[in-house]
Amino acid sequence: MTDDLILANDNKIIFLVLDGLGDIPDPAHSFMTPLEAAKKPNMDRLAVEKGVLGRTIPVGVGITPGSGPGHLSLFGYDPVRYEIGRGILEVLGLNMDLQPSDVAARGNFCTVKDGIVTDRRAGRIETSIGEQLCERLSKAIPSVDGVKVFLKPGVSHRFGVVFRGEGLSDELEDADPHKDRKPLALAAPKSPGAEKTAAVVNRFMKKAMEVLRDEPVANAVLLRGFSKNPDIPLFPEKYRMDSLAITTYPMYRGIAKVLGMKVEKEPADYKEMVSILREHYDRYQFFFLHVKETDVAGEDGNFKEKTRAIEFVDTIVPDIYALKPKVLVVAGDHSTPCPLKGHSWHPVPLLIVADTGERDGLPFHEKNCLKGSTGTIYAKELMTLALAYGLKLDKYGA
Amino acid sequence: MTDDLILANDNKIIFLVLDGLGDIPDPAHSFMTPLEAAKKPNMDRLAVEKGVLGRTIPVGVGITPGSGPGHLSLFGYDPVRYEIGRGILEVLGLNMDLQPSDVAARGNFCTVKDGIVTDRRAGRIETSIGEQLCERLSKAIPSVDGVKVFLKPGVSHRFGVVFRGEGLSDELEDADPHKDRKPLALAAPKSPGAEKTAAVVNRFMKKAMEVLRDEPVANAVLLRGFSKNPDIPLFPEKYRMDSLAITTYPMYRGIAKVLGMKVEKEPADYKEMVSILREHYDRYQFFFLHVKETDVAGEDGNFKEKTRAIEFVDTIVPDIYALKPKVLVVAGDHSTPCPLKGHSWHPVPLLIVADTGERDGLPFHEKNCLKGSTGTIYAKELMTLALAYGLKLDKYGA
Repeated sequence: MTDDLILANDNKIIFLVLDGLGDIPDPAHSFMTPLEAAKKPNMDRLAVEKGVLGRTIPVGVGITPGSGPGHLSLFGYDPVRYEIGRGILEVLGLNMDLQPSDVAARGNFCTVKDGIVTDRRAGRIETSIGEQLCERLSKAIPSVDGVKVFLKPGVSHRFGVVFRGEGLSDELEDADPHKDRKPLALAAPKSPGAEKTAAVVNRFMKKAMEVLRDEPVANAVLLRGFSKNPDIPLFPEKYRMDSLAITTYPMYRGIAKVLGMKVEKEPADYKEMVSILREHYDRYQFFFLHVKETDVAGEDGNFKEKTRAIEFVDTIVPDIYALKPKVLVVAGDHSTPCPLKGHSWHPVPLLIVADTGERDGLPFHEKNCLKGSTGTIYAKELMTLALAYGLKLDKYGA
Repeated sequence: MTDDLILANDNKIIFLVLDGLGDIPDPAHSFMTPLEAAKKPNMDRLAVEKGVLGRTIPVGVGITPGSGPGHLSLFGYDPVRYEIGRGILEVLGLNMDLQPSDVAARGNFCTVKDGIVTDRRAGRIETSIGEQLCERLSKAIPSVDGVKVFLKPGVSHRFGVVFRGEGLSDELEDADPHKDRKPLALAAPKSPGAEKTAAVVNRFMKKAMEVLRDEPVANAVLLRGFSKNPDIPLFPEKYRMDSLAITTYPMYRGIAKVLGMKVEKEPADYKEMVSILREHYDRYQFFFLHVKETDVAGEDGNFKEKTRAIEFVDTIVPDIYALKPKVLVVAGDHSTPCPLKGHSWHPVPLLIVADTGERDGLPFHEKNCLKGSTGTIYAKELMTLALAYGLKLDKYGA
């Protein structure tokens, strides 16, 4: 329904997404959460003065989402209906060119001995070595059976691959044993239509082993997450907003690009994030700012570091809000509670700052969010709500 | 989605189901509910220290469920999609053998005079008389038209019947006028395919009247709830947990058996319930403990008795929790408010005790449950949540 009610206007909406933001009371820290413990005077001032609180359920009650579904739902897509493959996220994050019929995959350099994968990450080689190896492979294997192969190095042992040719399918099992000390795996077709692609992929892998055979550590490759660009409505068209993504991590740029958001520049840090936002503020209506550190600290179970990450983000909030967006949303794609050291199912705290709201008058943390005017909603409903607070939705019915 | 994410591990989940648990403030008791008035130091200590509160809606907003749908939804089945016939629950509760093509029914001995049912319960005859009458009928009518008939007495005037033969259908109207002083009803087929079965059932009923014609009170039978074993995914397979039901009432054993849960022994009381739990704790991952007294007291409108029942259950909670389950859920299948003397639609209070949760820090009763982190969920979502708190669900999506 939302798509049919969109009013195109220049009101600005900023989504400040703190990855893995939500947490649970930590017995080792006076039963507080990092968001509760963090000194964040700027967020809290906005929350108290013009904030509406609530909670989002990323996918479903009790369901722990990965980053893909977590973000799709924040952007108003049903995460069960739409799926973005890992290969697509990788190659878009690496700024590789991708055409509609291409098949993308994530690659690893690995160590193989007598047909057994002894180290799936090739001892986490230096990024510079991965770059050299990608260059060698690119020169030696520009194509396989008429299918063009494009490689681009990532961090350490990681790289992205794009296969470009006619009639390619992404219905392939991972060419990856997923564990060390297992035999090398080849790409098996999941459907008869994928047999040709499987043959191409496997010939590429064998040729790569020949090229790399004298390498001391990184003497083979693994490929996984075979995928094509999904058939998904583009965000800027769906919501009639020119949309800019500003993220430090490649994967989140990948998600933004799949949805048709623009990426002007890749910030080195969060200060630069703000300067990019400021520089391009007039030309866009929607801005997706992604902060990864909260999730990393949660995965490490590091309460203090997660608290610090939130406090650091708080220091850039005044500069962001100085641009006077109609709506500033502070949200998470899922919870990553420190006591659990991983993604979780717990509802995620949500702050909407707008002068069109209920003004709950409460500082921003999990316990207050439970009392907020928004209540607990499915994350996929959030975009509609943000558009509403941004006065970007027409009335439904006469 | 839940079924696809199950991680099989030995973490234990205990469901302590207090039948008809929910209530509404009673003007005759200082506007308290029995759960609020009950002194239950053990439940409340767990609730405050590691409890997450919430409420469940058994079927839908405003919908009052029977025991079947109430329990199906607690176990994660959509109670609108799946239905378990009353006959099936009766015969499984009586431990009768049931094969996939059998048709089961609940039976009553009744009093008939000149073709009119004057008492549907035959003056609630003694159980021992019902047992004798069942034995006489079994001997006199072992089969009808090649269809085998099995009878087993229940409490008082009640008994279970199983019809076993080829091509039987459960598409039959009740052979029961449902009210006293109405003409005797026969089983009418709801579809053409059920005509043969209707004829068999009705011949059985006529033969039974002949056998019983000299009885002073119980001189006929009524049959209702014709049903077959439903085509329903089995609980232990669906959730990859070996599952044990410990219930004092037959009907709840029936529900558990339909879902494929094991029943090791039938406890005489709640103390024995705990000893059965303890004895078999290592061999199962899921335990369903059912307490009936709360519902009975609610149906009687007896506030003090319902309060006492909750207080009694509280005394067994320490022994249950001493087994250190990963998750202890205290729930109800529906509300049975004393002021209404019957099942109701009111959301049911829910307590989840787990060290992976939000720790709401509040004693367990309806008013606090409204403030709990779980919010108000559909009961069919509860299993997913319990599995999540039990760390038995994988992440959804990359």
